[in-house]
Amino acid sequence: MVSNKQVIFTKIPTGYPQPGEHMQVKESTIDLDQELPKGTFIIKNLVFSVDPYMRGRMRDPSIQSYAPAFDLNKPMTGDTMGVVIRSNHPDYKVDDLVYGRTARGLFEEYSLVNAEYAKNSYVVRNDPKENGLPIRHYVGVLGMPGMTAYYGLHEIGKPKKGETLYVSAAAGAVGQLVGQFGKALGLYVVGSAGSDEKVEYLKSLGFDCAFNYKNGSIYDNLAKYCPNGIDIYYENVGGEMLDAVLKHANNYARIIACGMISQYNREKPDPIYNLMNIVAKRITVQGFIIMDHMDFEEQFLKDVTSLLLSGKVKYREDIAEGIDKTPEALCDVLYGRNFGKQVVHIADL
Amino acid sequence: MVSNKQVIFTKIPTGYPQPGEHMQVKESTIDLDQELPKGTFIIKNLVFSVDPYMRGRMRDPSIQSYAPAFDLNKPMTGDTMGVVIRSNHPDYKVDDLVYGRTARGLFEEYSLVNAEYAKNSYVVRNDPKENGLPIRHYVGVLGMPGMTAYYGLHEIGKPKKGETLYVSAAAGAVGQLVGQFGKALGLYVVGSAGSDEKVEYLKSLGFDCAFNYKNGSIYDNLAKYCPNGIDIYYENVGGEMLDAVLKHANNYARIIACGMISQYNREKPDPIYNLMNIVAKRITVQGFIIMDHMDFEEQFLKDVTSLLLSGKVKYREDIAEGIDKTPEALCDVLYGRNFGKQVVHIADL
Repeated sequence: MVSNKQVIFTKIPTGYPQPGEHMQVKESTIDLDQELPKGTFIIKNLVFSVDPYMRGRMRDPSIQSYAPAFDLNKPMTGDTMGVVIRSNHPDYKVDDLVYGRTARGLFEEYSLVNAEYAKNSYVVRNDPKENGLPIRHYVGVLGMPGMTAYYGLHEIGKPKKGETLYVSAAAGAVGQLVGQFGKALGLYVVGSAGSDEKVEYLKSLGFDCAFNYKNGSIYDNLAKYCPNGIDIYYENVGGEMLDAVLKHANNYARIIACGMISQYNREKPDPIYNLMNIVAKRITVQGFIIMDHMDFEEQFLKDVTSLLLSGKVKYREDIAEGIDKTPEALCDVLYGRNFGKQVVHIADL
Repeated sequence: MVSNKQVIFTKIPTGYPQPGEHMQVKESTIDLDQELPKGTFIIKNLVFSVDPYMRGRMRDPSIQSYAPAFDLNKPMTGDTMGVVIRSNHPDYKVDDLVYGRTARGLFEEYSLVNAEYAKNSYVVRNDPKENGLPIRHYVGVLGMPGMTAYYGLHEIGKPKKGETLYVSAAAGAVGQLVGQFGKALGLYVVGSAGSDEKVEYLKSLGFDCAFNYKNGSIYDNLAKYCPNGIDIYYENVGGEMLDAVLKHANNYARIIACGMISQYNREKPDPIYNLMNIVAKRITVQGFIIMDHMDFEEQFLKDVTSLLLSGKVKYREDIAEGIDKTPEALCDVLYGRNFGKQVVHIADL
């Protein structure tokens, strides 16, 4: 028997969740030497991804939404990377790296998984053993956030060289990639973030302009930094930001509705007034959830791995140390206190 | 010299326009026997179309929008049908019927048109002489509103048999066609309108259900009449209606943003709260202006003419009698007092 800490969802929040109240890291144990029934295997978890959409899962399970509600008093789930340490399943061999994907990786130090759960939740991903990229990249730039950035910009944004791309939450897990992918496509890229330090970082990544949305009116900033209007908006924020973009958007603009983090902790959402622009300017607003597009993964991994290995794309991560820090790390993301893709380092290989 | 009344735009309204104040029918004269310079011709106008989008043209011309602002103290323009009575232009012959399109037909009894203005404004449309359909159909079901219904439903709605289509302002110029086109495609069609009489009319057209949006909460009505949710929403209304649809829409719903008539006379638009559903339900909201898609006209005319001639599609028109009634007729449309496509009968052939 060894210790096996788990990140437990303990209470449904209204407003912002609090570590200790709504999420708690609890002790449990696991017998790593137990006899494994056919089709089961044990994962040692190495890294967890904490992401804004997880706030939406902290709800009454009777409310339907795209990602299932967390079960109360059970381990939370999300995207994870781990390593198989024992196995009685032919497709998951000892030392295989496994990606806990479609937000079904279990947030605990060790996971005993059966074949049925594994089928839709864990996929072998040994790439980092071959290409030397950090394992944590596989829950970020090469995981769900990266694919979200890549799919949304290409398939919904339909970018044309020379157009203006505006990205909100641009220093986040998705935004920093959207901007760099946009530059690689020849777009004029403008980003916003919530601190001057993040703004400087965006410029260092090659964004043409960046601004701190906390300084001055959002609309005035957009008018100043997007002098040719906005052709593509990668929407991570919602609320007042979306309203200002609708006003400043060009004819035929595409709004890639990836998330609306400013709204996740509101009991009543902010009002939006400028929707008439959708008709007048022939704007398309399209929501998407990357889990619907897993057939895109192969092309995405190929393209973005090569962008990373050639140094054309950089990826900043904010690494919390140890499973105990998972609740705080998620709250940091919801408050915008993280700087780069937030991950939690659980163990080394 | 004969009398030539004109519908003049006299003042920019805030809120609802008033006949006599913002629009006036004024006397003028025209010499029908004048010598015609090369490339000019004279049209006797037969019918005018009055449509909701015209409210948006009653603005300060310094404000950019999709349709040009009306010129103060000049005749208003819109879609018209007329007949050439004299001509010195090889492409417009005496007795040709002409469609004043892309909202550039002049609102006056007789129009003296030169080649340059004619090029983008008037097209010969002799079809009703051959097929016997009423000339007024060519500013309605076979004109801009019909093509708006047809293009939007097919190209943006991407209808699949068995899906639920909801249409607001369903007894209007566009809505009644959207519903009938939807039935022809095998959709479950629900419509709303602002009177019980209109609701009965929708049922008589073959709508599966219809309701009066003035009775009870919109959301409750949608929940009742669209028990399988909404897959396609043909949006003519905006405001509270749009907000309720976002809440009741299914995953992957398509919202065809054709107009938002409830908002046109507001100084400040109504707030919308439910946009998070765009992400969670992967909704697409797409605005369009039919004038961008004139290459679609040939196919549209062919298909819809045959639907009309076979009796599969019916079209109700509300006919105001005489050019003097044009301002009132437009106001009727903006208040929803019309019943069917509002046209103004100016003269017989």
